[in-house]
Amino acid sequence: MSFVFAPAPMAVIPVDGEKDLYFPVHRVYGVARNYAAVNAALGEKTPPSIFLKPADAVVPVDKHGVTLDFPVATEDLHHEIELVVAIGKGGKNIPVEEAKNHIYGYAVGLDLTRRDLQRASASKGMPWDSAKAFDESAPVTHIKPAARTPEPENLDIWLYINNEKIQSGNTNEMIWGVAEQIAYLSTLWELKPGDLIMTGTPAGVGAIKRGDALEGGVQGVGVLKVNFKA
Amino acid sequence: MSFVFAPAPMAVIPVDGEKDLYFPVHRVYGVARNYAAVNAALGEKTPPSIFLKPADAVVPVDKHGVTLDFPVATEDLHHEIELVVAIGKGGKNIPVEEAKNHIYGYAVGLDLTRRDLQRASASKGMPWDSAKAFDESAPVTHIKPAARTPEPENLDIWLYINNEKIQSGNTNEMIWGVAEQIAYLSTLWELKPGDLIMTGTPAGVGAIKRGDALEGGVQGVGVLKVNFKA
Repeated sequence: MSFVFAPAPMAVIPVDGEKDLYFPVHRVYGVARNYAAVNAALGEKTPPSIFLKPADAVVPVDKHGVTLDFPVATEDLHHEIELVVAIGKGGKNIPVEEAKNHIYGYAVGLDLTRRDLQRASASKGMPWDSAKAFDESAPVTHIKPAARTPEPENLDIWLYINNEKIQSGNTNEMIWGVAEQIAYLSTLWELKPGDLIMTGTPAGVGAIKRGDALEGGVQGVGVLKVNFKA
Repeated sequence: MSFVFAPAPMAVIPVDGEKDLYFPVHRVYGVARNYAAVNAALGEKTPPSIFLKPADAVVPVDKHGVTLDFPVATEDLHHEIELVVAIGKGGKNIPVEEAKNHIYGYAVGLDLTRRDLQRASASKGMPWDSAKAFDESAPVTHIKPAARTPEPENLDIWLYINNEKIQSGNTNEMIWGVAEQIAYLSTLWELKPGDLIMTGTPAGVGAIKRGDALEGGVQGVGVLKVNFKA
């Protein structure tokens, strides 16, 4: 098989604590409006909803952190700190009670959002993709295998910007828990090994400025450091 | 580099008229509401808008056609026959007058849409992804290199279902022409070799029933045959 040009490199994320072992990313699903407090602040009454990011929108981030260019085409870039679920076993119509058997591990991710573009689209009933699915929109820590991670139902989650706590919550505020998300997604798509699920963000979302230093984390999972160029 | 499981196979599309030559798919962009007549029918006054499908939602279709399972989670699957542009040279902020230099070739595609899910999401300002980005949602013919394809600005485009003409139009009805789409997309994302653009659909969109036989085409580009299982 020959190609008309070299294929783009595959998106891969190192496995935490392992040498030269990688998680190959298949798709990136996100769950919008999944924390009750955020929805209350937005006056939002609809159920959570699914969006996707391209696999290679993922930026794998090691413990030293990463420095990113401020994205193009936005003057209202928002941070959403999230627990990320990494799927190791695929399936369709996965029952809620079996869903956790499909998890390979967990990570901490930032669901970066061009909020101005999202507002402009959503207010007209148009797609969110220009707001959610842009390049480098998903910085994610190395993936920690489930065997070394606490159960995901009751974990503190937080984000500091320039050493000030901006987002704070607990995964127990999720409207759809991790198992429910897997079960629901698998009714709409066939989940495959390599899928990531960004599970929604707690209260405190807001804007990132050029030069900001972000440090977010999920209890027992990891810490994600992302700086934006001035 | 070792992987925790085998990476998913890369999405590739054969090049028309060449032996063992393939176009490796990077991303699939779609342009919604890009034909004036469709928008008039919908009472739609917003400009066209961008959505994405996963690269492996593409189903490469040879001249003999393909038979697909009817998708899950919908009772209102819609056909949208489209000219597909295959990008061979990437770029950011590509000027309109240079845009066509970035095209590798063209194909005919079906932008399959779970319209019931789209309606439910769009009416609440929520993302379109469950409606647009599902598995096997993008059957596409082999890609015909631009050197063997007519210029894209004035081509008839049509779709027959069970031998009855259902969609009919001409690419000259596009609100954003092919060059404008490339230029616009490249302000929001960095285009890369392997990107596909589904350029919108002409009047006549409607529902597909189980057992339907679809045959669509674009003048000088190709013919796409897709059957759905009963």
